Amino acid sequence: MAWQENVRTVTPYTAGEQPKRRDIIKLNTNECPYPPAPGVSKALAELSADDFRLYPDPDCTALVSCLADYYGLPCEQVFVGVGSDDVLALAFLTFFNSKKPILFPDITYSFYDVWAELYRIPYQKIPLDGNFQMVKEDYLVKNGGIIFPNPNAPTGVFEDLDVVEFIVGKNSGSVVIVDEAYIDFGGTSALSLASKYDNLLIVQTFSKSRAMAGMRIGYAMGNQKLIKYLSDAKFATNSYTMNRTALSLGAAAVLDDDYFKKTTAKIINTRAWFEKELDRLGFIYPKSDGNFIFVTHPRLSGAELFTALSERGIYVRHWNKPRICEYLRITIGTDEEMRALTAFLDAYV
Amino acid sequence: MAWQENVRTVTPYTAGEQPKRRDIIKLNTNECPYPPAPGVSKALAELSADDFRLYPDPDCTALVSCLADYYGLPCEQVFVGVGSDDVLALAFLTFFNSKKPILFPDITYSFYDVWAELYRIPYQKIPLDGNFQMVKEDYLVKNGGIIFPNPNAPTGVFEDLDVVEFIVGKNSGSVVIVDEAYIDFGGTSALSLASKYDNLLIVQTFSKSRAMAGMRIGYAMGNQKLIKYLSDAKFATNSYTMNRTALSLGAAAVLDDDYFKKTTAKIINTRAWFEKELDRLGFIYPKSDGNFIFVTHPRLSGAELFTALSERGIYVRHWNKPRICEYLRITIGTDEEMRALTAFLDAYV
Repeated sequence: MAWQENVRTVTPYTAGEQPKRRDIIKLNTNECPYPPAPGVSKALAELSADDFRLYPDPDCTALVSCLADYYGLPCEQVFVGVGSDDVLALAFLTFFNSKKPILFPDITYSFYDVWAELYRIPYQKIPLDGNFQMVKEDYLVKNGGIIFPNPNAPTGVFEDLDVVEFIVGKNSGSVVIVDEAYIDFGGTSALSLASKYDNLLIVQTFSKSRAMAGMRIGYAMGNQKLIKYLSDAKFATNSYTMNRTALSLGAAAVLDDDYFKKTTAKIINTRAWFEKELDRLGFIYPKSDGNFIFVTHPRLSGAELFTALSERGIYVRHWNKPRICEYLRITIGTDEEMRALTAFLDAYV
Repeated sequence: MAWQENVRTVTPYTAGEQPKRRDIIKLNTNECPYPPAPGVSKALAELSADDFRLYPDPDCTALVSCLADYYGLPCEQVFVGVGSDDVLALAFLTFFNSKKPILFPDITYSFYDVWAELYRIPYQKIPLDGNFQMVKEDYLVKNGGIIFPNPNAPTGVFEDLDVVEFIVGKNSGSVVIVDEAYIDFGGTSALSLASKYDNLLIVQTFSKSRAMAGMRIGYAMGNQKLIKYLSDAKFATNSYTMNRTALSLGAAAVLDDDYFKKTTAKIINTRAWFEKELDRLGFIYPKSDGNFIFVTHPRLSGAELFTALSERGIYVRHWNKPRICEYLRITIGTDEEMRALTAFLDAYV
């Protein structure tokens, strides 16, 4: 027998391109167009390399306590990881451990089925309706867990909290994970439901609204039991996931709430301006509460427009998948970037 | 049914204590007593927080190419992760995917059985002999994979490469992982065997000899097929594991080879001095090729000595486990720290 027979082979997730050149307009991975809070630069300047010889705090207290204070939770209700992908992957492994399928929308973050395949978790995709909205009654089937992003990606569609509460409340036998990577751009977090439902796990990230994709920080919030299970699984995988820089700089980012509110408001304003331009140009899109818009045009091919934009040095995201192959997901950049994009679209349309 | 029934419950690994106070002599988690290379400080000063808004390079090219150059390998033979624990956990998930048990020594890194339990991998512990050495013929039983540290932890015992080659060569149907966290303190890496055996994976870390425990950087080396499988599994878990600071500072640490050789030589010298002191005091220990020594004393209780040291602010490691409960693992610190420890032992003995 060859060792290859024992290998767990997987089809990896395909992330958006991360080109090394800087002379492009990068609207393909929903990064923040503005730098992190000024406090992050200050915290960076205060780091001493000499401290790096020692392990970081395995409990991540500096960062966890900042987040706990910010959200008004005890530390025991907050868990941090290496980006929300790390938190979500661990949550899949920990909570989706049933023979019944887990449920998620057919159009959603394309890492969900990759994690399910990796950990051999059966899954069932629940179709969104024609407006890319969840049909809450479809989540009443037997399941081993439920996950969905809210706002959804790549559509940007936000589901009202009564939809979330319906799904969480009717599935008390399953953990329901609400992936709120884009919650700070207009939606309302389901965190307020966490005290009522002990099966609800909220996952958020520093990669979008906190402008820290490069630092890899994500977090989960929920009742103490959920967080304890997640923490046990972390301590059974890697005791020290967050390095010293992530702990310090992450905490600094949370502390500067004014800056956070200003940049998210700026992005929401730019999105509103861009929506009007899209309307004028005849694009169609679901109302977005994310830092991106999911657009299509009745007379244009999604794939062709994607290629034309790439050639012009404007990177957006396109998926060659059923139902969404005519759509492009466009990150909201700076006003200047969005004007350049709009000028190109003007000429192209 | 309650959601708790779907939870994967685990008994986590217990890491050495990470006390927040600094007024102790910390010889309990095998950190380097010297700071990282001067180039790391320089690289830290050159970081700009503004760059952190963008995702890091998912392929970790800056760091991987430095390591590849250093070891004379193509980049396709190097994989990096968030500490060697991250790399090892992923390797367990990827390569130990058989119904046959994996094999590892009975006295070894105590994370191995935790990962096996987490991923539901059957395992069998192979007893070390009376001198804490591996009995290579015991590794000829049917297995789904083999892992051992070399030098071993917590014993410090290094197995000659012919033992490693015997085990790797006779088990061509399994992946054999040699965990070389402590290889730079006197042992010889099995990397030279990697071109001959495609089932050999070498794992190393920046946490010990490179004085970067706080940055969480580990790596694996092996043939391209092994590295590709590992990389696929990473891209099925978390596309961006290494943050921007780890990529830059890790690369800087590898580039300063002079400093690396000087600090490892210093630790080896201190170990030699400490061995003589241990001899004088009547302690017994296997010859160590790590940055720690595993000591016992014919007339002293390991648990009592551990407590006495803790009370005096000297932290070492003790396990309440069969065969090793009378031993303490003592990290090699600075000369000054080892003199303080020796003075205490002098009085205690």
